[in-house]
Amino acid sequence: MPAVAGPEIERLIQLLARLPGLGPRSARRAALYLIKKREALMAPLTSALQTAIDKIVVCGTCGNIDTQNPCTVCVDPRRDPSVIVAVADVADLWALERANAISARYHVLGGTLSPLDGIGPQDLAIDALVSRAHDPEVKEVILALNATVDGQTTAHYITDLLRGANVRVTRLAHGVPVGGELDYLDDGTLSQAIRQRTLF
Amino acid sequence: MPAVAGPEIERLIQLLARLPGLGPRSARRAALYLIKKREALMAPLTSALQTAIDKIVVCGTCGNIDTQNPCTVCVDPRRDPSVIVAVADVADLWALERANAISARYHVLGGTLSPLDGIGPQDLAIDALVSRAHDPEVKEVILALNATVDGQTTAHYITDLLRGANVRVTRLAHGVPVGGELDYLDDGTLSQAIRQRTLF
Repeated sequence: MPAVAGPEIERLIQLLARLPGLGPRSARRAALYLIKKREALMAPLTSALQTAIDKIVVCGTCGNIDTQNPCTVCVDPRRDPSVIVAVADVADLWALERANAISARYHVLGGTLSPLDGIGPQDLAIDALVSRAHDPEVKEVILALNATVDGQTTAHYITDLLRGANVRVTRLAHGVPVGGELDYLDDGTLSQAIRQRTLF
Repeated sequence: MPAVAGPEIERLIQLLARLPGLGPRSARRAALYLIKKREALMAPLTSALQTAIDKIVVCGTCGNIDTQNPCTVCVDPRRDPSVIVAVADVADLWALERANAISARYHVLGGTLSPLDGIGPQDLAIDALVSRAHDPEVKEVILALNATVDGQTTAHYITDLLRGANVRVTRLAHGVPVGGELDYLDDGTLSQAIRQRTLF
């Protein structure tokens, strides 16, 4: 390939292929598309990336990414300061914000406990969460973690640590997804949905 | 979203979502991944894109993209100058080069005739191909076009135009793909494979 298109294009393809969702073949297609749309897409994307490199910072309070520290969420006075939603990842924070699920503060843990992958408590922002939970203003910590083994292990671990703080520790409800069809759901979800049924 | 992550990140996501193969959700994931890998991936990708913007040119002879004009393929003295492989797109040229299929020159048409999409002969580099085919050095034009209706229409159209030039006009063989299983193949391919059977 270098003999055909030059090492510059080959390097671009290799870097694009490292993005999640793009394999080697689609990276090649994306590179060609970018080169075709040089003015309309490649130039704006390059400058958007440069802006991101220059401006994006991690919020020192909650771990969100933003162009300011503390982040927009942490300094937003309209949000309920008594509730902290703990999430594994910034992507989860974004998902909850997109859903407009709650107007509270967040705490990004940076992952979930995973002994098999060598991820222990010291690798996550758990201490910082516990220290924030001791703020007298905070009344509730919602553990919005994935309903996976690692997510639930992390939730249990944090719940134990928060016993000393004067906060309610809650977790997301289990049940039938909105729009979900019963005969496609797994047994565990159905059992939980029955057990935690609510009055109509 | 702008209230959460800032317009800079939102713009990056929107631009990434325009790449082929990335939807809005995977663009979000890609943006987060880039921000996490700022030094290891976002910075190198940004500079690779900037290099591409600065250096990549379209070859004035064959339409290939490269960092030099005429391109590396066109100036390569080891390639057979008597054969021109006409392809619809640079991606097809790359595919043939990856396969090491032939050591010849190329001609990128820039698409195929498609009346429904309003793509006529004037939108493709057909005139340039005909004029190259009149070079006495050129003995054969291989029409390496997709085996689709549009591809074959384009091949027929070009074949008619090349009657005046002293060249052999050929097209790719139809048949069973290497590694292909007969009972998964369509009827058209099987019929062609029987009709164009070769001696064992």
